[in-house]
Amino acid sequence: MIRIAMDCLGGDHSPDANIEGGVMGLAAHPDLQMLFLGDEAVVKNKLEELKAPMDRCEIVHAPDVVTGEDRPLDAVRMKRDSSMIRGIKLLREDEDLAALISTGASGTLVSAATLRIGRIEGVHRPAFCPVIPTMHGGIVAVCDSGANIDCSPEQLQQFALMGSAYLSCTFGIENPRVALLNVGVESEKGDDLRRAAYALLKETEGLNFVGNMESRDFLSGKYDLVVSDGFSGNVLIKSTEGACLEMLMRLKRDISSRFVNKIGALFMYKTLMKEKKFMNYQNYGGSVLLGSEKIIVKGHGSSKATAVSKCVDQAYTMITSGLREKIAESIGKNIKTTEETQNV
Amino acid sequence: MIRIAMDCLGGDHSPDANIEGGVMGLAAHPDLQMLFLGDEAVVKNKLEELKAPMDRCEIVHAPDVVTGEDRPLDAVRMKRDSSMIRGIKLLREDEDLAALISTGASGTLVSAATLRIGRIEGVHRPAFCPVIPTMHGGIVAVCDSGANIDCSPEQLQQFALMGSAYLSCTFGIENPRVALLNVGVESEKGDDLRRAAYALLKETEGLNFVGNMESRDFLSGKYDLVVSDGFSGNVLIKSTEGACLEMLMRLKRDISSRFVNKIGALFMYKTLMKEKKFMNYQNYGGSVLLGSEKIIVKGHGSSKATAVSKCVDQAYTMITSGLREKIAESIGKNIKTTEETQNV
Repeated sequence: MIRIAMDCLGGDHSPDANIEGGVMGLAAHPDLQMLFLGDEAVVKNKLEELKAPMDRCEIVHAPDVVTGEDRPLDAVRMKRDSSMIRGIKLLREDEDLAALISTGASGTLVSAATLRIGRIEGVHRPAFCPVIPTMHGGIVAVCDSGANIDCSPEQLQQFALMGSAYLSCTFGIENPRVALLNVGVESEKGDDLRRAAYALLKETEGLNFVGNMESRDFLSGKYDLVVSDGFSGNVLIKSTEGACLEMLMRLKRDISSRFVNKIGALFMYKTLMKEKKFMNYQNYGGSVLLGSEKIIVKGHGSSKATAVSKCVDQAYTMITSGLREKIAESIGKNIKTTEETQNV
Repeated sequence: MIRIAMDCLGGDHSPDANIEGGVMGLAAHPDLQMLFLGDEAVVKNKLEELKAPMDRCEIVHAPDVVTGEDRPLDAVRMKRDSSMIRGIKLLREDEDLAALISTGASGTLVSAATLRIGRIEGVHRPAFCPVIPTMHGGIVAVCDSGANIDCSPEQLQQFALMGSAYLSCTFGIENPRVALLNVGVESEKGDDLRRAAYALLKETEGLNFVGNMESRDFLSGKYDLVVSDGFSGNVLIKSTEGACLEMLMRLKRDISSRFVNKIGALFMYKTLMKEKKFMNYQNYGGSVLLGSEKIIVKGHGSSKATAVSKCVDQAYTMITSGLREKIAESIGKNIKTTEETQNV
């Protein structure tokens, strides 16, 4: 039996979407047990309404909510009865609990995970690794996308190793092509951090490092994983998401205002909706916090039930694919390199 | 008479596009004189072919080309017969020459400008400020987009002041709304640089600072100017450009493969082409290097004649609108604040 905890509060559509997503996960995985954190009565009612398999459901009463307005460190200390902080506490204390899914405030989730959950041996800092579709049917991941604003070259190296392990274990991508986010493709581009990281990535064992990537090529399908400090990674993924959505909105407006041919308009709407669905990275699961001793999946704040269920699938695959061991192994192999580099 | 220099080499469509763009500029502005740098015979032939007003054309023989492969500092020192480095030298020495337009390698252009052309009094470092269209008919500028990878809070403050002056002088935007690129909108978001810059921008005289901006909202029309270090600013603008173009390509492919209704397809193509033209930031002129004592406009490497002519228009407006004085004034007013801040 695999046990996954669901933080039912904090998302735009919580608790309903989170409970429903969890129940969808239970239907998909017969050996899955879900532990729901939230207002006990509300959760219980919803589970009954959804005819959930109650023998595979646990409920922990934690009715308080962490919000985006809470300062992360304050929330970790003060909001102990919140679904998120209780979830993290249970994840630490309960050996059989393998993962936590949350659609709540990322800042607090990262802080709580960093303070309360251990890291996989050798990992400096856990990092977020969201995945979005490229324009050619594949996917591309970014690590880190916001958990670590200031980074060292060694951290970027670890993001590359952890992200590679994640893509091969969870998405079946063999030998993922790893690029370093930079302002140009030439090896000497960027600041000291980028140049040092480039040199380190180039000689990292077991890594398919293909060089620097310019942001323009993010969706080109030429890369599987983009390594970055959390600040630029955040800019990269959010500006891409924003541009695609604005573009679709604009095209939609164009059709409404200009199309006289109704059949043409209908076809175009269909195409746009297909693209909208395609670009929606909720369909690709949540952003995983890689490097944490236990699995934490952060779903988008606007996640609906299907998006939450994808996060469950994702956590389930990460648990069963042996990702933790693969990360430990690849980080272990390179620790020597890291230490040697630090002594230079 | 206003004199502008045109670096005819280094772009994908140079020298023809650059010469033609310059001649278009001459047609648009009767009091303009263009100085063309490149291979003298080639330039002369092309000018005659285009029936350019030869009394307003000067030619300087500088047949060597700076390429993207040249290391900027080496190119500045070694490629003295290149059109770009000769152009910068003339800009420094010839008092009546007001601006240089180039579609060549940005890195070398920035280095040459920094080493050979003075800065406006009080300016720490010049910065690139490209402009792109938003989804709502307006524009949005980013400063810096790549000239300065590492920045101090005071530099970000100056980017805000220079960018604001530029938008009001050149695009007629009164009291431009200035935002700081960050990983969230709350004031305490980001690293030390962002928090210090936020505090500084908030108290800057003559600046309409509206707070932090998340990358997702870049094209939302809520901001006129986004202030950033050159690394993240580069990621922001290039990933936005890349995402929009990939999106259009994908939609185009969708139509080709799925449309059975020919009239619908035709309408849709037209809409897409309109969007493609709209998103093409070549139509909005080049990226201006703000803070330099003389005006330098960097056109996109792939600029065709029309794009180059927009750069001429842009330089012309910058010269005639008194931008230099406006920048000097707003930087001057805030220098005290800057120094006080540095002493804290």
